[in-house]
Amino acid sequence: MLGLMQNWPLTVDKILDHANACFPQREVVTRSVDGPITRSTYGAIWRRAKQVTNALRAADIAPGDRVATLAWNTDKHLEAWYGAMGMGAVLHTVNPRLFPEQIAWIMNHAEDKILLFDTTFLPIVEKVAPLLSTVKTYVAFTDRAHLPQSNLPLVAYEDFIAGHSSDAAWGGFQEDTACGLCYTSGTTGDPKGVLYSHRANVIHAMAANSVDCFGAGANDVVLPVVPMFHANAWAIAFVAPMCGAKLIMPGAKLDGASVYELLETERVTFTAAVPTVWLMLLNHLRDNNLRLSTLKRVAIGGSAVPEAVLRAFEDDYGVEVIHAWGMTEMSPIGTIGKLLPETVAADHETRIKTKLKQGRALFTVEMKIVDDEGVEKPHDGKAFGRLLVRGPAVARAYFKSAGARNDKGECIESDGFFDTGDVANIDELGYMQITDRAKDVIKSGGEWISSIDIENIAVGAEGVACAAVIGVRHPKWDERPLLIIEPKPGANPTREQLLGFLQGKIAKWWMPDDVALVEKIPIGATGKINKLALRETFKDYQLPSTGE
Amino acid sequence: MLGLMQNWPLTVDKILDHANACFPQREVVTRSVDGPITRSTYGAIWRRAKQVTNALRAADIAPGDRVATLAWNTDKHLEAWYGAMGMGAVLHTVNPRLFPEQIAWIMNHAEDKILLFDTTFLPIVEKVAPLLSTVKTYVAFTDRAHLPQSNLPLVAYEDFIAGHSSDAAWGGFQEDTACGLCYTSGTTGDPKGVLYSHRANVIHAMAANSVDCFGAGANDVVLPVVPMFHANAWAIAFVAPMCGAKLIMPGAKLDGASVYELLETERVTFTAAVPTVWLMLLNHLRDNNLRLSTLKRVAIGGSAVPEAVLRAFEDDYGVEVIHAWGMTEMSPIGTIGKLLPETVAADHETRIKTKLKQGRALFTVEMKIVDDEGVEKPHDGKAFGRLLVRGPAVARAYFKSAGARNDKGECIESDGFFDTGDVANIDELGYMQITDRAKDVIKSGGEWISSIDIENIAVGAEGVACAAVIGVRHPKWDERPLLIIEPKPGANPTREQLLGFLQGKIAKWWMPDDVALVEKIPIGATGKINKLALRETFKDYQLPSTGE
Repeated sequence: MLGLMQNWPLTVDKILDHANACFPQREVVTRSVDGPITRSTYGAIWRRAKQVTNALRAADIAPGDRVATLAWNTDKHLEAWYGAMGMGAVLHTVNPRLFPEQIAWIMNHAEDKILLFDTTFLPIVEKVAPLLSTVKTYVAFTDRAHLPQSNLPLVAYEDFIAGHSSDAAWGGFQEDTACGLCYTSGTTGDPKGVLYSHRANVIHAMAANSVDCFGAGANDVVLPVVPMFHANAWAIAFVAPMCGAKLIMPGAKLDGASVYELLETERVTFTAAVPTVWLMLLNHLRDNNLRLSTLKRVAIGGSAVPEAVLRAFEDDYGVEVIHAWGMTEMSPIGTIGKLLPETVAADHETRIKTKLKQGRALFTVEMKIVDDEGVEKPHDGKAFGRLLVRGPAVARAYFKSAGARNDKGECIESDGFFDTGDVANIDELGYMQITDRAKDVIKSGGEWISSIDIENIAVGAEGVACAAVIGVRHPKWDERPLLIIEPKPGANPTREQLLGFLQGKIAKWWMPDDVALVEKIPIGATGKINKLALRETFKDYQLPSTGE
Repeated sequence: MLGLMQNWPLTVDKILDHANACFPQREVVTRSVDGPITRSTYGAIWRRAKQVTNALRAADIAPGDRVATLAWNTDKHLEAWYGAMGMGAVLHTVNPRLFPEQIAWIMNHAEDKILLFDTTFLPIVEKVAPLLSTVKTYVAFTDRAHLPQSNLPLVAYEDFIAGHSSDAAWGGFQEDTACGLCYTSGTTGDPKGVLYSHRANVIHAMAANSVDCFGAGANDVVLPVVPMFHANAWAIAFVAPMCGAKLIMPGAKLDGASVYELLETERVTFTAAVPTVWLMLLNHLRDNNLRLSTLKRVAIGGSAVPEAVLRAFEDDYGVEVIHAWGMTEMSPIGTIGKLLPETVAADHETRIKTKLKQGRALFTVEMKIVDDEGVEKPHDGKAFGRLLVRGPAVARAYFKSAGARNDKGECIESDGFFDTGDVANIDELGYMQITDRAKDVIKSGGEWISSIDIENIAVGAEGVACAAVIGVRHPKWDERPLLIIEPKPGANPTREQLLGFLQGKIAKWWMPDDVALVEKIPIGATGKINKLALRETFKDYQLPSTGE
């Protein structure tokens, strides 16, 4: 028997409709790419987003068509975002940090029909344009006076929407309709497109703004430093209008001084970004002996929170750190580090240690860790296994099945769980901690050895600049760990010193069988050690027979 | 084009699954109906709810069947709740405060197959049982030792679930599946059954627990004094396990001393109930000179928050009042009184005045006010109109179409909005204020006069115990207001005194054309003035011709 409730599809246009109905005067403040700080409101953004919809329709964009943006967080980007999504088109946020060739590949794969971009990215657009096969219209997020010179037939955004009515129908399609597209570039293979649905984005935004996650309300002032091209600015582009928070858009300037200026002048209470941004801010604070006078909470994700960043925010500046973990494929938030009563009551060091874990599952996210046979591992904080996730905002396949994991183009593990590609443990309280990438785990005699655990210890040894651990073939144990060391300039650590340093700090059978010194450990585009390159270099490495 | 996200139906079993996975040790504390305070956990409740599912299946309950409860808020009620809903049966919470004849009518209409009830309600059950045509099994929420004597074939709940496995499949049906049934008894017509879906309950719980509404997290301790038979305990039976809050179930004792004891001994941070409960608590606090040492927020709804209750909580005890308005048909929460930045900054009296309004819309709730032709009225805090609502947790029809508003059994107004039957205004900031029931509004010369506005003023006149205003027929203006007064014992206010008192406090054309003194103004079952009876009494009333 079915319930008798109204049919009200969860589509993201309803979020901006709500902001327009309930918080029309709430400000959206932007550090514009053109220079000055500009002030808009949810009401004005709603009206201009409707104009965008009409302008897109006039430019022959139909529901389902991909509308690409190459842009920072600004009010205009937000207008284009809702203008495209509201009419059922798919907003494809392109990451400007990729190489032009990658951008071209992604945009051709997505078959983007139109590109809206910040003028700062014109050099990229001009490089990419000759390689694009489907883009027909180039719109620069500026007015005619600021339109740069180009050989491309550029349209100024203000001209693009000028004269169009602010009356346009939104929604009216099913909630599973595609809404956004975001490519994730792994270290291997082609980029893979995650095709978000309206439903997923609405549910995820509600979950991400729960009290123990972002926890924002109408009295908050929210600064998403994390870009909209980075997995929907971690949902903040949905969360802020949904709850009526004042929204501060940082534009192109993410340096410490610029972020600090916005935090203070706009009285920001909640902000979010990757650790790199916070290192810049913290350096700026220290160098200039500054305080944070209104900031209460900072969400940190994208990569693990460095201990120094956590301690600086919480101990030195009284700002609560929300350590969040997720993936583009998870819309993106999966877990949060918010303390539970059991850990709130613990001593300071235990609290810090807990907060450094990736965190506990949001409602709507299911997690499990399994061995290679799919058998679940216990949640004791020690046993580790492949991390699988499931939920309404988790990808079940990639756009056009590119880079998918099985023959059908689906990335489904057993029971419809998505394989994160990470290896993790989960403790008794539900806090998950990633211990390795699945492909980097060393499988020795049927047991798993975490390369990252050994690296994290080895990097503390004297004379070590960087440490990597990879598995190399072994006749008896299948794989055994090899410790690869990049010494500090002038240092010359020996095999005996290094292995001696590890002694007693790791299980005996985890002890690397050998040490290789290299001039430079290769680092990939995402700032992580390029293990693929290392495995290639050391693929024929002969371990000493003393290793057993 | 459809998105590529996982299919993860929003069903309420996932809420308790989440609590079991992430907060298995979090306590659920109950003042048991049998007497002592008992302690359980979400993990234990999850396992016992699975046993309930197996016990229900063994008792021939199939998906879609109605499972009735006549019970207070307890851990056992929560187990039965999730045990029934998880398997796709429909949990029908029966209001024990109704007359036995009404209960029988409702249970026969619902075709309940089984009744689980608290032993305190045995007298009601014994009266009702002979009138019931579909109930086959009577389960008392107790163990064999406490099973009362009865001519009915009673089964003790502990025996009912004993021996059944705690392994049972939940979910697996579509999210629109019916989940709960709750009858609303208006002042006219038969009771009407609201048939909640899983989807509606999950979405509503997420919305109801947003920061500006309940705002509960894993570090909260939540006491729902509002019963589960009162519109799902305002979603708290879903909200608490969803966010991992410790849950305190008050059982049968809702008096000031009992509620105070739980608030203090269990260190409650958030609680919710109707104003009557809080009047009892506040009296208890004053009489015994007590403080509230842990309580931070109190949600008040069901009827408008009396100003004295608001001021006492906020000014005397430092507890934030969350004024919530809703309807059984809205799952139930529609609006919340949480202040916006514009009103946070205002003076104390303005803040109080704002908080006394019914509040602003939750995300997922759309509101509008319209005239009789469906034309929208402005949001200026003055213009009033019929209040229409829309959303995923709003009823579109009643069970078996009983009491519905049109031929198809749907209560749909234009655009799929639900007509609340209230008349309200909405101010510039979006705060809605109910000014009347639609059927009580007086329509004079095409304009509307709010009976409640006049009553609220008239009750302040000397010698007045109770005041009612109804419309009576008028040859020229269709209707004109008649002021009906129940004088205080011994008082004898005159027509001139009463109308004189209103002078200058209401618009001239709102001035009642006459005053009628009565011994007793009739009060309905819900504690409100029975206007229907008054209209019947005064249906042939002749207004003096001086009234124009």
